[in-house]
Amino acid sequence: MPSFKAIGLIGRLGSTNTLVTLKRLIRFLQTRGCRVIVEDHIAESLLGQAPEVMSSEAMGQSCDLVIVVGGDGSLLGAARVLCSSGTPVLGVNRGRLGFLTDIAPDEVEEGVGRVLDGEFEHEARFLLDMRVQRNGECIARGNCLNDVVLHPGKAIQMLEFELFINEQFVYTLRADGLIIATPTGSTAYALSGGGPILHPGLDAIELVPLSPHTLSSRPIVVDADSRITLHVGETNEAFPHLSCDGQSQVVAQPGDIIEVKRLPERLNLIHPVGHDFYAICRNKLGWSSRLGE
Amino acid sequence: MPSFKAIGLIGRLGSTNTLVTLKRLIRFLQTRGCRVIVEDHIAESLLGQAPEVMSSEAMGQSCDLVIVVGGDGSLLGAARVLCSSGTPVLGVNRGRLGFLTDIAPDEVEEGVGRVLDGEFEHEARFLLDMRVQRNGECIARGNCLNDVVLHPGKAIQMLEFELFINEQFVYTLRADGLIIATPTGSTAYALSGGGPILHPGLDAIELVPLSPHTLSSRPIVVDADSRITLHVGETNEAFPHLSCDGQSQVVAQPGDIIEVKRLPERLNLIHPVGHDFYAICRNKLGWSSRLGE
Amino acid sequence: MPSFKAIGLIGRLGSTNTLVTLKRLIRFLQTRGCRVIVEDHIAESLLGQAPEVMSSEAMGQSCDLVIVVGGDGSLLGAARVLCSSGTPVLGVNRGRLGFLTDIAPDEVEEGVGRVLDGEFEHEARFLLDMRVQRNGECIARGNCLNDVVLHPGKAIQMLEFELFINEQFVYTLRADGLIIATPTGSTAYALSGGGPILHPGLDAIELVPLSPHTLSSRPIVVDADSRITLHVGETNEAFPHLSCDGQSQVVAQPGDIIEVKRLPERLNLIHPVGHDFYAICRNKLGWSSRLGE
Amino acid sequence: MPSFKAIGLIGRLGSTNTLVTLKRLIRFLQTRGCRVIVEDHIAESLLGQAPEVMSSEAMGQSCDLVIVVGGDGSLLGAARVLCSSGTPVLGVNRGRLGFLTDIAPDEVEEGVGRVLDGEFEHEARFLLDMRVQRNGECIARGNCLNDVVLHPGKAIQMLEFELFINEQFVYTLRADGLIIATPTGSTAYALSGGGPILHPGLDAIELVPLSPHTLSSRPIVVDADSRITLHVGETNEAFPHLSCDGQSQVVAQPGDIIEVKRLPERLNLIHPVGHDFYAICRNKLGWSSRLGE
Repeated sequence: MPSFKAIGLIGRLGSTNTLVTLKRLIRFLQTRGCRVIVEDHIAESLLGQAPEVMSSEAMGQSCDLVIVVGGDGSLLGAARVLCSSGTPVLGVNRGRLGFLTDIAPDEVEEGVGRVLDGEFEHEARFLLDMRVQRNGECIARGNCLNDVVLHPGKAIQMLEFELFINEQFVYTLRADGLIIATPTGSTAYALSGGGPILHPGLDAIELVPLSPHTLSSRPIVVDADSRITLHVGETNEAFPHLSCDGQSQVVAQPGDIIEVKRLPERLNLIHPVGHDFYAICRNKLGWSSRLGE
Repeated sequence: MPSFKAIGLIGRLGSTNTLVTLKRLIRFLQTRGCRVIVEDHIAESLLGQAPEVMSSEAMGQSCDLVIVVGGDGSLLGAARVLCSSGTPVLGVNRGRLGFLTDIAPDEVEEGVGRVLDGEFEHEARFLLDMRVQRNGECIARGNCLNDVVLHPGKAIQMLEFELFINEQFVYTLRADGLIIATPTGSTAYALSGGGPILHPGLDAIELVPLSPHTLSSRPIVVDADSRITLHVGETNEAFPHLSCDGQSQVVAQPGDIIEVKRLPERLNLIHPVGHDFYAICRNKLGWSSRLGE
Repeated sequence: MPSFKAIGLIGRLGSTNTLVTLKRLIRFLQTRGCRVIVEDHIAESLLGQAPEVMSSEAMGQSCDLVIVVGGDGSLLGAARVLCSSGTPVLGVNRGRLGFLTDIAPDEVEEGVGRVLDGEFEHEARFLLDMRVQRNGECIARGNCLNDVVLHPGKAIQMLEFELFINEQFVYTLRADGLIIATPTGSTAYALSGGGPILHPGLDAIELVPLSPHTLSSRPIVVDADSRITLHVGETNEAFPHLSCDGQSQVVAQPGDIIEVKRLPERLNLIHPVGHDFYAICRNKLGWSSRLGE
Repeated sequence: MPSFKAIGLIGRLGSTNTLVTLKRLIRFLQTRGCRVIVEDHIAESLLGQAPEVMSSEAMGQSCDLVIVVGGDGSLLGAARVLCSSGTPVLGVNRGRLGFLTDIAPDEVEEGVGRVLDGEFEHEARFLLDMRVQRNGECIARGNCLNDVVLHPGKAIQMLEFELFINEQFVYTLRADGLIIATPTGSTAYALSGGGPILHPGLDAIELVPLSPHTLSSRPIVVDADSRITLHVGETNEAFPHLSCDGQSQVVAQPGDIIEVKRLPERLNLIHPVGHDFYAICRNKLGWSSRLGE
């Protein structure tokens, strides 16, 4: 069993909740004898409480565990940075349960304490690697834990592109866009777009067209080792935009080729023992509880 | 490379097309020097042309290859019988392209000829094993290549049951029913019910609720090794019916437990080289062809 | 302003809640000096408290107002009986808010009191008239406030029929069934089936196909004065069943013609002043409240 | 019966098809003794063939009939200009059937001839009037025959706004956007977005949320006389964009109020006798034809 001694703390400031929880967490970790390292972006706000400061990238080398305080969005950012080192990541939410940040702020000592005591489970969550090829050269690249989204940039305009999976032609899609999501992303934007829920342990990628012109277009689920390729049509009036986890906009041009495949590295996501994916679904989606309850 | 010498023929009579294609196929196989064995149900209609007659069950032991002439429904029946022996199965349709029966009747010599020449691909398609437990005893059992469907029997009445996946409680579903489908079944009834398309090579099972009372209920896709369990609510006024591939009705009672898991045996499905799953989707679902076509 | 003197009470027994609320309501109405008339089905359970007894049909002639205690389902039944007389109908629920029964049981004196004081709104809700024609003769007929549903009877089998609207051919539908719903019904079964919400004041009928074989089939909304006709296909293996508000099963045969049109009479539905359709939607469907709440 | 003498011609150049059809149409109208007036934008391309030239606005005063050659999009533009004068509008497509442009280019003489002979039907199609209010002032306004769309401008970002119908609060919508569509628009973008088909004769408006965050959000259909109001949330990070029939972008700010209601004027849309809305649906959406065909 690994022992977590050096603990990195990452947070997205902006809400006082986050700051309060971070301070509470530093105190708790210090009483547990941990070495506490704070992300550089938030160090100033924690003046006096933050003995050590580091970039999130450097944490990957120096920390045994990184705790992210914030929403699922904050954890996505940490995941993209920390997947290469395989550093375990734990999420504490700011008051509203997340799919990834499943320790509540008022249970932070109890939840994190259990993890330090070795009462945790870990999941390997895979990420996607997106590359844009233009005239044979890779002009842009991005990673994501949730999804790659192809969408019209400025206005609502129909995009047109050819979809290939493992070099097999699938169809020409005329749509507002396309979501390419991991199981982790299947409960995020892809769900609003009409995609199915993929269990986090499933080795699969889902493709969800947004407002497709052809009404028989349906979400498609393929093996996570599939190579997904989009050929942007030469006749697009709109220049399609690409985003990774809602970040890092790239503007594609007619003729560009977008390649999406699984990243070899995985996020090492930690939960206190007893983590229950379906309980989070029931809570967040309003699903019915057991009969007689 | 296996050599196909003893060839079984299965068909569902009713349309003259089937009979015409079967006769044409017998002639062709005889000119190729094959031993031709005809299913007992159709032997009488082929009087004079059918040198050997056998049940489809027996074909599993005696045939190197079984050819099914009919729609996807006919192939489902053969699959349930032949999966235990692992006998290769090839499908010839009656004029309308199927997802499983992908040799057209007017190309029967060319398509089957290529298979006999060794120019074929094969896919292992998994099946589901469904059992109904009552007071600790298994009172009914069924296999299916497409889907297990839980539905109200006589009338439209809301069913109520608890869903568990790998012994984890998922939710209480109040709905017209539930489809539990393999990737093979994902392009059949589950697609009409609103489920995603699962690539045939994906090791996954999808669960598609039918007209769920809770609007946030969505299709869920889980690993094919998952154990799916339904607890029929004690308060159901309707007695839920179960069907496997649309066959073999079982009437469940309040308190019954339905278990669905992957069958260890798989269907060994044969296609002529060049089989293209997405081309069949485009053809059958009206998806758009390549740009400029 | 009408004055409500003779008040009919209808309820569906089975839950003690209903009985408790009925007794409380009788006491309250008597203190207000009303003449209280109780439906014959429930009179025995109210022995001693029920001075006058009548069938729900007779109430249409003798009562100034009929109060239904129960779920939306109980009110549907009263609506079908009382629409012909135009008697005002008021709904009291048994603890769970309904779209039609919008007075809570613990506010029964306040809610009903306000109605007796003249602080009420009324809505005219239209009903549908369904007739089955066989060989030129009407063999069955039904009324409904929510919906007419065509569905396969015993098993899940695809139905096939031609749909006409105002004698114009729409399409041949191959599906599990079809829901033909009023705006009142649009928040009931049709919503689970994927139909839109029609505002109760809209003069429209919606047609929602259930698990249609053709993926481009979509809900259609037409004027409430439209005549909807279904021609049951001669080749159906299943005998389609028809239900009105989930009641009164009729089994159709191949060749039958089903006609659905608006009934001239309407339900006169009463609400305490301040009734808010969208507030009920938010409550029952989990829609978001105002920003900042 | 009106007699069409002065005929205006509108087209969107860019495809040679349009020009060929326009020339063919001018010749035909001249042989029928009509006064032919050509829109100024296309006059140069018709040099020698265009005796009279006019803006589309002026045509509203001077023409008895305006013929639009192009796709449905071209007709939308003409509709917005010509609805105020009530001038009859007829659509000729460029080779692909439209919902609005239903005369095929190779049947132009026959189709237009029948209309000139008085063999036509006309439909009054209503339009929407959209206004953006900021600090009590109307800062932008637009008309549309199809739809008003609220969408995030540059990137995919969730919008947040409150929806009111007839001053009644409906819900706070967190979504990619919202489509507010007429029956005419219900077979355009709103259909891709998941909305129902509204018959062109229905006096209704539909509201279709795009990728709503709350999964129980559903399309809502209300009376065409409803006033629809959107309050843009103060906390939006994205500045929502508004488009009318895909044109005329307005960028809204947090705090803006968007009002949408029916325009008093209507498009006077002409069809040759025998126009069949459902036949166009079947053709364009791939719906099934009659049994036995």
